[in-house]
Amino acid sequence: MTLIEKVIGSLSQLPGLGRKSASRIVFYLLKSNRAYSEDLARDILQLKSSIGPCRICGNFTDIQPCSICSDSRRNRGIICVVEEAKDVLSIESIREYHGLYHVLMGVISPLDGIGPENLRIDTLVDRIKSEGIEEVILATNPTVEGDTTALYLTNLLKKEIRVSITRLALGLPVGGDLEYADRLTLARAFIGRSQV
Amino acid sequence: MTLIEKVIGSLSQLPGLGRKSASRIVFYLLKSNRAYSEDLARDILQLKSSIGPCRICGNFTDIQPCSICSDSRRNRGIICVVEEAKDVLSIESIREYHGLYHVLMGVISPLDGIGPENLRIDTLVDRIKSEGIEEVILATNPTVEGDTTALYLTNLLKKEIRVSITRLALGLPVGGDLEYADRLTLARAFIGRSQV
Repeated sequence: MTLIEKVIGSLSQLPGLGRKSASRIVFYLLKSNRAYSEDLARDILQLKSSIGPCRICGNFTDIQPCSICSDSRRNRGIICVVEEAKDVLSIESIREYHGLYHVLMGVISPLDGIGPENLRIDTLVDRIKSEGIEEVILATNPTVEGDTTALYLTNLLKKEIRVSITRLALGLPVGGDLEYADRLTLARAFIGRSQV
Repeated sequence: MTLIEKVIGSLSQLPGLGRKSASRIVFYLLKSNRAYSEDLARDILQLKSSIGPCRICGNFTDIQPCSICSDSRRNRGIICVVEEAKDVLSIESIREYHGLYHVLMGVISPLDGIGPENLRIDTLVDRIKSEGIEEVILATNPTVEGDTTALYLTNLLKKEIRVSITRLALGLPVGGDLEYADRLTLARAFIGRSQV
């Protein structure tokens, strides 16, 4: 196996890349200037060496606590609970939410042997109690596992703490077409319809 | 800008990757084990430091001459002319061609200011003359530039050398559907029809 084939093989393990796209990347790197490859290689190494979970919210960060947890301009009375750190990036990109986050680092999934005890739920309860949180937004994915986790958290929090608990709206995607909406989504769009 | 955003930015410069797919890769790297990232970074560096064009055919290689040029089992009377080194990999993957290659490193494109003198055409002519080549397969892409280059090479070679010159067949893609074929391809499929 040549070095080119080896690199194509290791790149094609990355999510979303097959052999074709991996080989395009390899030939792009071979044609591009050396500094770009060196920067890329250093960035990849640095990712693993300097980034870890924030000790408060669990978001990936290179400083402790992360830039969101330590930002005094954020609304500290509201906490958004997500499955994975990457969800924080998605929500930050809409520039609509200005509260705090809590990353569960997974989702309840009995088939994969993941129960509530494997998630960062204890620290969530501690934070809600000690930080004077007023609203908890359960932003787990609208999947069976995400819904199960949200239901579990709702029951747990309602028992222990007086706090407002919300869940993200379900409905038609903006720019979508009724024709292409699946039945469940369309049904949720009807249930969640609002006065105009 | 955080380190994560920086790495997403530099990954999304790669061909075929947008910000979404770049961020999926970054989070995959953050969750995967450290050895994988280290291997990947080392591979990327090694690509640039140890791979360059073969001094005979122009294919990317880490040894001189490349493994194809130095392979005595290849048919040394036939040479396949391609635009880029990546085309060699595509043709090798079909395991159907057993001759030699010659990489032009581009294609005649007046709009981009690339003329015949910018391509590896002199070395091609030298090779055909000195290596006793019997057939030249012009495997440039079936595009305006690729066809122009093939035509230029045909005229040049016919004037200078007695050698058989061929071009790859054009027609319907295997598994394709007449309905979805563009008119030019369908026309070429008719012109190139063969007796059954």
